[in-house]
Amino acid sequence: MPKIVDHDERRRHIAEAAARVVLRDGFEGMTMREVAAEAGYAHGAISRYFPNKQSLIISAFIQVFDDSENRVHENVNGIRGLAALEVMSRQILPYAKEGRRKSRVVLAFWDLAAQDAELQKLHQTKLKGRRALIRRFLTEAFEDGELGPHVDIETAVDEVSARNAGWQMLGVLFPDAVNDDRLDAGLDALISSLKKPLGRK
Amino acid sequence: MPKIVDHDERRRHIAEAAARVVLRDGFEGMTMREVAAEAGYAHGAISRYFPNKQSLIISAFIQVFDDSENRVHENVNGIRGLAALEVMSRQILPYAKEGRRKSRVVLAFWDLAAQDAELQKLHQTKLKGRRALIRRFLTEAFEDGELGPHVDIETAVDEVSARNAGWQMLGVLFPDAVNDDRLDAGLDALISSLKKPLGRK
Repeated sequence: MPKIVDHDERRRHIAEAAARVVLRDGFEGMTMREVAAEAGYAHGAISRYFPNKQSLIISAFIQVFDDSENRVHENVNGIRGLAALEVMSRQILPYAKEGRRKSRVVLAFWDLAAQDAELQKLHQTKLKGRRALIRRFLTEAFEDGELGPHVDIETAVDEVSARNAGWQMLGVLFPDAVNDDRLDAGLDALISSLKKPLGRK
Repeated sequence: MPKIVDHDERRRHIAEAAARVVLRDGFEGMTMREVAAEAGYAHGAISRYFPNKQSLIISAFIQVFDDSENRVHENVNGIRGLAALEVMSRQILPYAKEGRRKSRVVLAFWDLAAQDAELQKLHQTKLKGRRALIRRFLTEAFEDGELGPHVDIETAVDEVSARNAGWQMLGVLFPDAVNDDRLDAGLDALISSLKKPLGRK
C-alpha cells in the first residue's frame, strides 16, 4: 500500500512549529532551517508547503493570532456586554511572561505589515474581526442598559482597540511599567469609563 | 587660514538629513548613501560622524522624536491641566498625512528597539519623559479641581500613553479607520473620561 500523506495535517504541523519558533526567537530569528528542526522534518520537506520565509511568517502570525482568538471565544462563551469585553481584553493584554512573548510577535508583525501590502491586508482582516467583537460587546452593554449615556459605540471601539494595542508596545518596550497589577488597574479604569456613572439608573 | 569645520553643526546637518530620509523611506530604506546624498555630502564624509547604520538610526529617531517634543512644549506654553494634555496628544497623534508618516517611523523604531538593548534604553528614556509630562498635566488638573474623583493619576498615565501609542499603530495599519474626525472623537472621549462627571462640583 502506498504511504498516505495528509498534506493538510502536515501543513498545520509546520505552521504550529513556526509559531513556537516565532514566540521563542522572534520573526528575525525564524529561519526555514529552524522551523524544519522544530517540526522534526528535513529542510526540503518544508519548502513544499511554505516556499519562502514570507509564507512562513504569514502562517506563524495567523497561528499565534488565531490561538489567541480561539481562547477569547472559549472564555466569553455564555457572557456578554462589559463583562465579555473585560474577559476578551484580559486574553489579549500582555499578562504574565507568555503575554509579553506574544506582544513581541505582534510588534514585529506590525512593522512587517507596514512594509508589505499582503501582510497589511491580512492584519486588517484580523483587526476588523477583533473590532467587530468589541462592537458586539459594547452593543450588548447598550442593550442591557450597562453602557453610560455618554458613550458613542464607534468611538469606544477605536479607543478600546487603540489602548489594547498600545499596551502591547508597553509590554515589550516598557516592561518596568507593565505588570499584571498595572494591567488590572488600567482595565478596571477602562470598564468604569464605559459604565453608567454611579448612582444613575 | 585653515578651513574651520564646525563638527557639531555638520553632525546636526546629517542627523536632520537622516530624519528626512526616514520620514520619506522608512528605516529599511535609509542607507548611508541615501543620507549622504540628502545631506549633500560625499559618502565618506558621513562615516566620520556616524560610523554605522545603527548610529544613524539612533540620531534619526532622536531627531524625529525631539522635533515632536519641541512642538509639544511650544504648544503647551501657558496652558495646563487637561487642556495641555489635549494639546499634547494632538501633537503626538497621527493627524493628517505628516502625522501618519511619523507614526510609520515610530512603529519601525519599536521593532528595532525590541531587538536591541541600546535602542530600547533610548526609547525608554524618551517614553519616560513623555509620561512625566502626562503626569504633570494630570497633577495640574487635580490641583485645579478639574480631574474626576474616580481618576487614579498613575493609572491614567498608563492609559493615556497606551492609547496614544495604539493610535500610532492604527494610523499606519488601519488607515481606513483613522482620520482626523475619528482622532478628535477619541481624544474628546478620553478627556471627558478624566473630568468630573457633569453636574458635580
